[in-house]
Amino acid sequence: MLAAPPPASSYGRRPLGERMIADLKAKLQRAFNPRSVAVVGDKKQSDYMWLNSLAHFQGKVYSVQIDPKEIPGIEALGVPNYKSLLDIPGPIDYALVSVPRPVAPRVLQDCIAKGVGAAAFFTSGFAETKTEDGLLLQASLTKMAQAADFALIGPNCMGPYVPGIGLRNNTDEAWGVSGPVAFISQSGGNLVNFSQAAAASGIHISKAVSYGNAIVLDSTDFLEYIVDDPDTQLIGAYIEGVKDGRRFFRLLRENAGKKPVIIWKGGQTPDGARATSSHTASLAESMAVWEALMKQCGVLRANDVDEMVDTVKALVMVKPGVGDRVGMVSMAGGSSVTITDTFGRAGLRVPELSADSYRKLGSFFNIIGGSYRNPLDAGQTFRSADLLVQMLETLRDDPQIDSVVLEMAARRGDRDPKLMEGLLPALQRFKEGTTKPFLMVVSPPQRVEHYERYAQLRDELTARGIAVYSTSQRAAATLRRVVDYYRFRQELQAG
Amino acid sequence: MLAAPPPASSYGRRPLGERMIADLKAKLQRAFNPRSVAVVGDKKQSDYMWLNSLAHFQGKVYSVQIDPKEIPGIEALGVPNYKSLLDIPGPIDYALVSVPRPVAPRVLQDCIAKGVGAAAFFTSGFAETKTEDGLLLQASLTKMAQAADFALIGPNCMGPYVPGIGLRNNTDEAWGVSGPVAFISQSGGNLVNFSQAAAASGIHISKAVSYGNAIVLDSTDFLEYIVDDPDTQLIGAYIEGVKDGRRFFRLLRENAGKKPVIIWKGGQTPDGARATSSHTASLAESMAVWEALMKQCGVLRANDVDEMVDTVKALVMVKPGVGDRVGMVSMAGGSSVTITDTFGRAGLRVPELSADSYRKLGSFFNIIGGSYRNPLDAGQTFRSADLLVQMLETLRDDPQIDSVVLEMAARRGDRDPKLMEGLLPALQRFKEGTTKPFLMVVSPPQRVEHYERYAQLRDELTARGIAVYSTSQRAAATLRRVVDYYRFRQELQAG
Repeated sequence: MLAAPPPASSYGRRPLGERMIADLKAKLQRAFNPRSVAVVGDKKQSDYMWLNSLAHFQGKVYSVQIDPKEIPGIEALGVPNYKSLLDIPGPIDYALVSVPRPVAPRVLQDCIAKGVGAAAFFTSGFAETKTEDGLLLQASLTKMAQAADFALIGPNCMGPYVPGIGLRNNTDEAWGVSGPVAFISQSGGNLVNFSQAAAASGIHISKAVSYGNAIVLDSTDFLEYIVDDPDTQLIGAYIEGVKDGRRFFRLLRENAGKKPVIIWKGGQTPDGARATSSHTASLAESMAVWEALMKQCGVLRANDVDEMVDTVKALVMVKPGVGDRVGMVSMAGGSSVTITDTFGRAGLRVPELSADSYRKLGSFFNIIGGSYRNPLDAGQTFRSADLLVQMLETLRDDPQIDSVVLEMAARRGDRDPKLMEGLLPALQRFKEGTTKPFLMVVSPPQRVEHYERYAQLRDELTARGIAVYSTSQRAAATLRRVVDYYRFRQELQAG
Repeated sequence: MLAAPPPASSYGRRPLGERMIADLKAKLQRAFNPRSVAVVGDKKQSDYMWLNSLAHFQGKVYSVQIDPKEIPGIEALGVPNYKSLLDIPGPIDYALVSVPRPVAPRVLQDCIAKGVGAAAFFTSGFAETKTEDGLLLQASLTKMAQAADFALIGPNCMGPYVPGIGLRNNTDEAWGVSGPVAFISQSGGNLVNFSQAAAASGIHISKAVSYGNAIVLDSTDFLEYIVDDPDTQLIGAYIEGVKDGRRFFRLLRENAGKKPVIIWKGGQTPDGARATSSHTASLAESMAVWEALMKQCGVLRANDVDEMVDTVKALVMVKPGVGDRVGMVSMAGGSSVTITDTFGRAGLRVPELSADSYRKLGSFFNIIGGSYRNPLDAGQTFRSADLLVQMLETLRDDPQIDSVVLEMAARRGDRDPKLMEGLLPALQRFKEGTTKPFLMVVSPPQRVEHYERYAQLRDELTARGIAVYSTSQRAAATLRRVVDYYRFRQELQAG
């Protein structure tokens, strides 16, 4: 419990004073690094989803459940159950509350009395329902938390996810791994989707949180904590509405050029904004204002989970670069035209190479049926890993070229597994040796029976630290986004 | 052989007179419906790719090969070999020529002398190489074919593909099936990619052709033939350059409002145009002019093979509609916001429903944790096929709604296979019964082990005639495109 005198503002009211912010960060420090967690109201009907999610949690887990029919099932999981939060011996750093909505205020009261660090309310049915009951209950929770300066997360949310310590909000999420990426998400579903898609791309999470209706703690509060988190190198966010826009953008401006921030704004269109109001009761905000402010702060933009993962992947795995000129190797003439058009529509160039490069290529490239312009059409000549790497190196060494992209069909691997075996380490060496951005495009096959081989190739390349994209469109859009970001940072540094 | 006097123009020179066009169409009729095919120059090194592609051809197949080392392998395939085209008994409707480029003129001479209906030259190394040799050889082939009014396809191409009669240009292509879609492609790779992707979506091909450098026959000539083909209901095309733009667009204007045409233009950007010049020696054309003309003729636009297949699928499988207002059912709150934004960015609306619809929904929809706005959030309530179909029917019957979209996660099927079993026929009945467009979004899973189940669900829905898209972005872009097309047609009919 805090001994400090009550501050002039409270979490739910804005703006927050400095002392309030320090207090808040201390509480979030407990919630994101808990030694003890209580789950209030888990039950058999939902397969004990919360307690099962915490199966690998590295601290103490307690259950609070008063229904005598539920208690044996909970105890069978090996989790001690109490009738009230107040009965639990020792402090509780974080509580997850999943009770029927009329009970929510009483549980909040207990959280406050117990001195819980922070509590996330999974319980929904509040302002997002637009019903009188829902609105009144939400107002009562808000008032109670504000009066006590209680760090309430949600309601209608899934709370923190810290894979490194096994603090999860879904049994599908990874645990026991940790990475450089924080994810702040107003939607629980989007948090789960992002964490799964990121893990599939070899990207792991430092800390994440789903915060729903944000009646007390909002994106701004989590951002305040996460910009200083030493485990976090870059920050993704899914946001439907921001309550203290001034402080939110001040934080982003202060952070500009430090940790990259990617924002996926929910409710960009009038209809989308109406959907957010049914989802987390967020109010509509002008997308034009958001766009202007994001640009000013060098914030990267994503529009869905794929774009978010694509961008994070490039920031983590691809060397920084500020130039538009792409050198490409493609496997088929027709697709080399399309890939060039795709990069062109994304605002990138696929220019002619220097005379020196053409000279080098001419010494080992068979022109008939292929081509040694840019993109280099390797369709006919892809018979050795060495040759392919020589082509990539020629692009890398060309002063007319800023980034290198290799487009490859997964099916090649079926035809010549031995070639692939040599190629993978060669590509990894190339990637590690180059100071220019290097991306690959490997598209999924049409036939289901080829999918596993494709996924294996993609995962092997990923495991070797190479950023693989499933379409040239996604690769181009991502490269455009990160080049713009690094250019922003360069201009910022140049003053 | 033609008895008519030589026309004033020839295929390679423009414009073509009416008699020339009739003559040309007669020759293409032979090439697309051949009773006899000769393959000139197939060999072991390429696994007899041409003869193997013709393994299921329903007419006569002959080989022409003079290399004594190659002949036994060819005869082992059961194909009779001759030293010259002229030695083959009986007429040859179509010849595929795959010989070293210096030999090409001599083989063309034989084709002319033999009275072959049309010949496709797979042989490459001509103007696309920008070498003197290549340019000279191309000029000589062109002159020879023009002088004889010979229907030369290519060079640097794969020729016709007619799956129904087993006339293929690749062993990966389907055979023994036939559908309503023609595909005219300057690139052989794009033809193969399209035919495979389309087949995976349950879309089959009537007739297709890859025509490469187009030194004699061009897209216009194939279009002229295919607009009148009774087996073809819609036409896709991949085009890098058009030699007789006036006639090409006149054909498209005459066809406007009849068979839908989708054009994927290669070389849209300056760099892309440079790539086409290395690929099929096509000259750059202004994309602005193309866009204006396509719009004038109601031509749909695609930018890659995915967009081409997506659009064809909607034209074949989705009922026509001219309105922007989409009614949606989605499985998770977070994704319902994103899907709404995605459709909004594509220029579509996801509006509020009529009061009557909300009344109907209120009678069976549990609002807590879900939502009965639009999109309908079925995440919590998706427990029966009936309920889901009732939601879809409510949208269908709503006068505020023009199209219905269902977004579904493949993983649901894992959780409750019995539910899916009932759902599939229910969705098919819904699709068949509605007069409004109905599309589904089913996204691939993150984990490889779930992929097969996803592909199965997608394929089962496809087999039931439902258009399934792998992302909401692709569904939205496609719906936008076809709504614009049907609106064009409506306005044309209204005069």
